[in-house]
Formats: sequence, C-alpha cells, structure tokens
Amino acid sequence: MKEKEFINIIKTITKSDFIGDDCAYLKNLGIVISQDNLVEDVHFSMKFTDAYKLGYKSAMVNISDIAASGAEPAYMTVGLSLPDNIDVEFVKNFYKGVKNTALGIEIIGGDITGGDKIFISITIIGKTKGRKISSRQNAKDGYKIIVSGPHGSSAAGLQQLYEGNTNKFTEKHLMPKAKIEFSKYIAENIKSDYAMMDTSDGLMDALMQISRMSNVLLDVDFNKIPYDKDLEQFDNYKDLILYGGEDYELVACVPEDFYVPNSFEIGKIKKGTGVKIDGKYIKNAEEKLFNHFKEQK
Amino acid sequence: MKEKEFINIIKTITKSDFIGDDCAYLKNLGIVISQDNLVEDVHFSMKFTDAYKLGYKSAMVNISDIAASGAEPAYMTVGLSLPDNIDVEFVKNFYKGVKNTALGIEIIGGDITGGDKIFISITIIGKTKGRKISSRQNAKDGYKIIVSGPHGSSAAGLQQLYEGNTNKFTEKHLMPKAKIEFSKYIAENIKSDYAMMDTSDGLMDALMQISRMSNVLLDVDFNKIPYDKDLEQFDNYKDLILYGGEDYELVACVPEDFYVPNSFEIGKIKKGTGVKIDGKYIKNAEEKLFNHFKEQK
Repeated sequence: MKEKEFINIIKTITKSDFIGDDCAYLKNLGIVISQDNLVEDVHFSMKFTDAYKLGYKSAMVNISDIAASGAEPAYMTVGLSLPDNIDVEFVKNFYKGVKNTALGIEIIGGDITGGDKIFISITIIGKTKGRKISSRQNAKDGYKIIVSGPHGSSAAGLQQLYEGNTNKFTEKHLMPKAKIEFSKYIAENIKSDYAMMDTSDGLMDALMQISRMSNVLLDVDFNKIPYDKDLEQFDNYKDLILYGGEDYELVACVPEDFYVPNSFEIGKIKKGTGVKIDGKYIKNAEEKLFNHFKEQK
Repeated sequence: MKEKEFINIIKTITKSDFIGDDCAYLKNLGIVISQDNLVEDVHFSMKFTDAYKLGYKSAMVNISDIAASGAEPAYMTVGLSLPDNIDVEFVKNFYKGVKNTALGIEIIGGDITGGDKIFISITIIGKTKGRKISSRQNAKDGYKIIVSGPHGSSAAGLQQLYEGNTNKFTEKHLMPKAKIEFSKYIAENIKSDYAMMDTSDGLMDALMQISRMSNVLLDVDFNKIPYDKDLEQFDNYKDLILYGGEDYELVACVPEDFYVPNSFEIGKIKKGTGVKIDGKYIKNAEEKLFNHFKEQK
C-alpha cells in the first residue's frame, strides 16, 4: 500500500480540502501548518547518523515544507518517542541539533514518550503576513520553471552511506539546508500566483505533482538542471538527479519576467499534461519515485 | 529516565518559555497548539482496542488538551506511522474514529509513513477568540477547586482489560469524552484569571502541578470527588480515583462566586504549598503517578 492510496482514503473520509498538500494554509489565522514523521530504520538509521544530526535534519525537513509554501517558519512542536535505552546525552544533542537549525524559530512544545524505536513527528507553523503563499495548482502556460540549487547529491550520499563511505555527498544527505532565502525572496516580491514545492521526494515527483495539480506540461532540459559534476562517477547519476529525494531544494513555476536571485531556470510551462525531459514524455515515473513504503520492503 | 527530566533538559537547551505546558499559547496569532503522541504497546494495545476506537481516542486526547486551555478546538493534523501489514480497512476505520470525535474540528493534514509499530502523533490548534485562556499559574488563595466529572473509571477499565473483562469501565477507558462544554462555559464567561488542566495523567498529578506552578496549597475533601460507586468493589479504588489517569475530566481553580454548571467542588485554594487530601499532606505522590516511561518497564 502506498502513501498516496492512504491519502485518497483519508480525503474521502475526512472530506477535507487541505489533505494532500505539504502545508495547510489557514487564511483566517494567517498561518500555514505542516507535520512530518521520521521513523527509525524507515527514514533514517542510527548506523549512519547521530543525535545532533538527526535533530538538525528532522527540523530542517519541516522547515523545508514551510519554505515550499512561501511562509516564514515561526514555531515548532516536537513529538518524540524514544526507546528506554536512550540516555540524557542523546536528548541533549538531538535538541541542540533542532535548535541549531531553527534559527529564529521558537520551539513551543511537544511530547516525549516511550517506544521501541525512535519516532519523531514535528509540526511547524509558518506566518503568512507580508507574503504570497504558493499552491501546486498555480503553474501557468508561459511560466518558467526554476530550482534553488543542485539535485542528486543527497541520494548519492545515501547510496554512499550504505557502502560504508563518508564524503561530501553523505554530508549533503545528513545535513540538508532548507532554502528559506529563495522562498522568502519569491513570497515577498512576486505579484502573480505561483507554484512551489520542495524536492524532498525527488525533483521528478515535484514536477509530476505540479503538472497534475495545475493541469499543464512541464518541459525540462536535463542539461539545465544544476548538479555536482562529481555525480557523474555514478552509473545511475541521471536517476539520482531526477528521482533521488531529500535534496530539499525548491522548484518554483513563476512568470517569465520575474527575476529570482540565485535561481536556475530548468524549463518552461506549456499547454498540455505531464513532464517532458529533453523533449521526451516521462512514463512510469511512479516506479522510480522515492517512496518510503516501497523502500521498506 | 522520566518524561519530566527530559522536559527540563529540553527547556534548558531550547530556552523556550512554552515547553512544559500541554498547550502553547501564541497570543499574536490567537491560537493555542498542542501535540501528543500515542505509541502502540506503550499507550495502547491492539489486543484491547480496534482501529475505530483508537482513532476516536487519539483525537479525543488531543481535544482534551485544548479544552484544558479554554480555547475552541478548531484544526487537527494527524501523523501516523503504520506497519506494513496494516490494511486499508484499518486506515478507514481509524479516520472514521478521528472524524467522529472531531465534530466541527477540521482535519487539515498530516503524514503517513511506515514503521514497526503503530505510532500516532496528533497536533491540534484551538482558537482563542472570545475566550479567556487558562494557565496553571493562575490558582489563587480563596479560589474553589472544581472538577467536570467522576474520576477513577478509566484506570479501573485498564485494569479490567488486563484481566480480560469488558464492561462500563473498559468503555470509559477506550472511549473517553473531552469536556469541551465545561471548558467553553468557563472560558467564555469568566472575568478573572483561572487555572485549568485535564486529568489525563491523574487527578493528583493535575493538583500537584497547579500547586507547584501557582505556589499555593490545594486543600481537597476526598468525599467530594465524584466517582462511580461501583469502583468500591476494587481494593485500590481510592488510588484509582486519585492517581489513575485518562479520565480526561477537567480540574479548574476559579473564584468562589463564579458558578459553573455541572461542576463539582472538591476543595479550596489556600496559602501554602502542596496538596492536602482530608487535611493530610500528600507525600511521595510521584511514585504513584501515572508515568508511561515507568509503566513500560
């Protein structure tokens, strides 16, 4: 069973319009809110990370969801479930990691309970005042597609961790940086509606979702996608760039004439549906997409 | 290691004023927010419950936290981690339970991921408009102590479940009701500051925390605490009433002349510290208090 099937069931039962997006936008309260789980041996392994890095990444993953909405990350609650053998040092270092990520974000609560494995569920609230909030439904014919930075490094890093290596790619995997400046610039300056997502589940997943939700064609030039040239040492580097997740870059669809500093244009929005890479429609992308339920089996 | 030790560490590292209360009150946004975890085989066992009841109780536990603040429960996000063998029916019934509890509360998002055991982390947001918000620091000399209903039934129910029985007490344990009307009446009508907590971790735990946070003595008459007289069949019924958790009633400290419908006065606030039951100071209460970390061992 895949996460998306579950989400369809949940949408049917709850009749909620919000379910399915990374953030829910509560206009009347001037906030966006997002909640993400990280589960030991599904999303991370203590073989590869430590308490500090885990806290750091757990917070950053959630900050990235808020960045994707265009809102300002403001408050965070941290729900933790910890095995009995976890010691004080672990908790100290975990929270140091969270705190270090969350510059300017106030940690306002949460819950600590027992459990067999480490389970982390972070809820983050972003303030929308003075910002225009994105929606996946807002990509329009004629818009350009931009990204905030290179793709593929994190997935290469995960592969390297499994092979027992540590290097710049493994560091990218363990210590990502949410693109809050990129998000802030767009949300504070743009006049038109725009689409934005983070690429936590891979660049292709984000492109596909924007295509489906906006009912447009995303026409991308592979050569324009920024990536670390050292990735070319891996046979599967193109898959790492397109399908590898957890880079936590942003992909945005904005009007042609809207300039965003430090952005990379990778393609155009056109009439139609789906995603084209170098002129070819992408098919059966689902199978390659990063999916934790699949990974686990 | 107990939850309270962890919380002290977290307060030190995060330097947050919010940590330690069930709800964080964000005045500038007009909301309170709370997050609670429920972990399989720590907080519940699938031997004793089913997906519908689990969804119902998970939501209700969180609604009770908002009720304790005096705010109006408004929005909920649900983070779930589910083992691979969980089927569609489980997810449907879980969400039916959540939805059925959450009359008027909108489910606005969350996350579903894999895992070894069922882990539930719910975040709930309450609106504060038109309501006076409680604080554990607000109990004052001369106030009366009131509760919203009977205590002890839920803990008796848990005991009965372990013994293989099902009866009215087990139903109280599995399907509690948050006291939102009691909360609403106080929060909409009271003029003075007041203290309120839910008794999720036991009545004594709530009394102790109010005493410590308000620096007052809580002088309680045991005979005034409402309870189901059938509890007297259990040898430990007084402990169940005072220390058993999960009744999800509310305890409030309000001015003597403030009338609350359907409330039970159980004692008075006086100058001093600690909690007295029938004139005797309670000592070593910590050992009897409901503590999940302890329970698990």
